[in-house]
Amino acid sequence: MKIVVAPDSFKGSLSAKEVADAVESGIRRYWPDIQIVKLPMADGGEGTLETILDCLGGSEKSVEVSGPLGQPVKARFGILEEDRTALIEIAAASGLTLVAPAERNPLLTSTYGAGELIRAALDEGCRRFIIGIGGSATNDGGAGMAQALGVRLLDESSREIAKGGGALGNLARIDMGGLDPRVRASVFRVASDVTNPLCGENGASRVFGPQKGATPEMVGILDVNLKRLAAVIKRDLGPDLENYPGAGAAGGLGAGLIAFCNAEISKGVELIVEITRLKQKMAGAALVITGEGQMDGQSSRGKTPYGVAMAAKGMGIPAAALVGSIGKGAEEMYQFGIRTIIPIVKGPQSLEECVSTARDLVSDAAERLIRAADINLRP
Amino acid sequence: MKIVVAPDSFKGSLSAKEVADAVESGIRRYWPDIQIVKLPMADGGEGTLETILDCLGGSEKSVEVSGPLGQPVKARFGILEEDRTALIEIAAASGLTLVAPAERNPLLTSTYGAGELIRAALDEGCRRFIIGIGGSATNDGGAGMAQALGVRLLDESSREIAKGGGALGNLARIDMGGLDPRVRASVFRVASDVTNPLCGENGASRVFGPQKGATPEMVGILDVNLKRLAAVIKRDLGPDLENYPGAGAAGGLGAGLIAFCNAEISKGVELIVEITRLKQKMAGAALVITGEGQMDGQSSRGKTPYGVAMAAKGMGIPAAALVGSIGKGAEEMYQFGIRTIIPIVKGPQSLEECVSTARDLVSDAAERLIRAADINLRP
Repeated sequence: MKIVVAPDSFKGSLSAKEVADAVESGIRRYWPDIQIVKLPMADGGEGTLETILDCLGGSEKSVEVSGPLGQPVKARFGILEEDRTALIEIAAASGLTLVAPAERNPLLTSTYGAGELIRAALDEGCRRFIIGIGGSATNDGGAGMAQALGVRLLDESSREIAKGGGALGNLARIDMGGLDPRVRASVFRVASDVTNPLCGENGASRVFGPQKGATPEMVGILDVNLKRLAAVIKRDLGPDLENYPGAGAAGGLGAGLIAFCNAEISKGVELIVEITRLKQKMAGAALVITGEGQMDGQSSRGKTPYGVAMAAKGMGIPAAALVGSIGKGAEEMYQFGIRTIIPIVKGPQSLEECVSTARDLVSDAAERLIRAADINLRP
Repeated sequence: MKIVVAPDSFKGSLSAKEVADAVESGIRRYWPDIQIVKLPMADGGEGTLETILDCLGGSEKSVEVSGPLGQPVKARFGILEEDRTALIEIAAASGLTLVAPAERNPLLTSTYGAGELIRAALDEGCRRFIIGIGGSATNDGGAGMAQALGVRLLDESSREIAKGGGALGNLARIDMGGLDPRVRASVFRVASDVTNPLCGENGASRVFGPQKGATPEMVGILDVNLKRLAAVIKRDLGPDLENYPGAGAAGGLGAGLIAFCNAEISKGVELIVEITRLKQKMAGAALVITGEGQMDGQSSRGKTPYGVAMAAKGMGIPAAALVGSIGKGAEEMYQFGIRTIIPIVKGPQSLEECVSTARDLVSDAAERLIRAADINLRP
């Protein structure tokens, strides 16, 4: 009998690995000799890099690149041991948290540093890329990244345009001649839960621009500029990305990664389910236990338990979730393969008490869950 | 497929019946057409009378009897519809809460009112008695009760002794000639979780006397007097009760009920399991769901979930508990037939919030439990 333990972290208290260890200890109290496969999971959100490196084995690199406004920043990325897949979070180079609120201006911010980060990974011999694109400070359609990788973005006078979403208004044509040849020899997979198109009402500029510092006036300019980028890409490179789902992720970086790197966009958790080989590891399991800090209506929009449960459901394996708390809409998860949800709390307790005893709470709840699941109502 | 729902009340928030109804609604959300047998339970503690009347059908009577110090008190008792079994709580006539703290004095308090209560039930045609004997203010070995039922307790001069544990010191012999003949025609079952003997170190006077107002000096007198009662009972009536387990319950009323009413003492919950015919109703059930407000180390000493689970265990039926909170030692219940424990809380919550939403919490937790139990780990 085999049980797979594939939780996310409990934000603010336990890492995914700590949750998995606690779950194992609880199961073992009831069932000492059962086979337990621990697979700490993530969904592309905060903590994904550490969790995946931890889960699959690999190393972390740090490199100096250009921040969103050109200032030097130290950015981390990971390299998986097995096949030197690079794990890159765009936010490490081009993230909103790297820019002081008063200086946030998507007319100026650029994904140039993200391109440098990719180049650093290429220098390390990486030819497979997993790219998380949440949390960017940019709205440049990936123009900066392209420039860092050798693509020339030219104005009417065949001069290189400046960096930032504002300068895109001068784009006249794209010259791919200088693109780093290692890019074409590489495979890019993008983890993104955003399905917005590049332009228009639901486009990158209008939906995400304001939170990056764009005024209503800027939003108008940025939207027009991304439309221009899409038109030039279509004419010079082929792909029609203006309405492509996900092209609007990270200020249009989604479109840029498709156009310049031939990237494929997937839901974060699905990509992580794939690279962690969760399905192979679940084969023959009697139960999969997943979990997250709070399960609610957001969970079914691509959080870790959703991805784990959907993979399990496809294989006919029941999934159960241990959670810090149940919020509104958690019961939606029942239709996506989660068979039951067990909160870790023992009774009326404060958040502080739960956080400080989280390890024991998870362990005890795992025991109660496995005991309940072993009742075998219809033997 | 049948599920039996046999919870205690959640003290301070829901009656046993309300808990059972909430559990049913939760199960039905997942499994609309399953057979559900609801059997609100109790263990002889607070609320037992209402729960049993509610569960089995019956009426409540009220009668004026003598309080512990002779003052008139209104005392309730129940009569089961089916066979006119009387449900009597001794505390209704002779309870500690009927005496102001400053007047508590077990040299004077008497179970005379308890005897009057039994007489009232006899007048109603009852010949079967279930007697709960917790919470008495007395230490008279049931002497007062015997007097109320016509037994003559005589001193050396063949005069009736006075009421109270102090006057027992004058007891010389017992004359059963005047005993109400209906008592001999009746069956008395006593619900008591106390196994203390009548006298000595672990006897009624020493262990329970102080909480009824006995000073150390009084304790000594009371213990000697109960020893005298035991000796006279042995000589005049036959039974040797000095060291009989449970004889020390309710200030020796346990001994009195055995000696004068030929009563049988049982654990409260076992007696209630019996009269509610829980086992018959559990036959063929796939699961029994019980529950209580707090499950902890005390639970295995005869609380409702213990009784329900032990009955289920004997029949090879799994039992699960829904609880308001899990306290220290709750895991002891696993060896007594409780297969898993599911707290009703959804996450970090205050007691007030839990109490005010208890019905929904119980309902949701019941759904999660039945979902977990239906995982069928070893199909």
